[in-house]
Amino acid sequence: MTKAVFYHAGCPVCADAEQVVLEYLDKSKIDTEIVHLGTDGNRIEEAERVGVKSVPALVIDDKVYHINYGASLEDVKKG
Amino acid sequence: MTKAVFYHAGCPVCADAEQVVLEYLDKSKIDTEIVHLGTDGNRIEEAERVGVKSVPALVIDDKVYHINYGASLEDVKKG
Repeated sequence: MTKAVFYHAGCPVCADAEQVVLEYLDKSKIDTEIVHLGTDGNRIEEAERVGVKSVPALVIDDKVYHINYGASLEDVKKG
Repeated sequence: MTKAVFYHAGCPVCADAEQVVLEYLDKSKIDTEIVHLGTDGNRIEEAERVGVKSVPALVIDDKVYHINYGASLEDVKKG
């Protein structure tokens, strides 16, 4: 089972991408953790380290897939 | 069954995103057509019309999800 993390910040663009992740990723192959960086600020550093520049972003096997553009990680840090 | 179209242009960023689409989208829920705009140039107009600005992009139900940034549609037009 592949592990994935979907980082978002509750923005409308994030919600839209989250819907795709929840609805269309194959749960028999990929296990996706949803992380809201706005409420879970202690995960920001981890997201940054793996290469997340903006949200929403899906990380699979240390590869980062930025899906459209909701907000920069810098903006998320500012709250 | 939801219909989706994945537009790409053979770029490395495209190939990376294509791998996720092919491997992790749930084929029991979503039927994804792969379109190479470099070799299938007569589909560029359709991609543009639905709102694709760059490749790779995944279009589901008329919503466009740009996944990272490989090349602009303008660049693809130039070949």
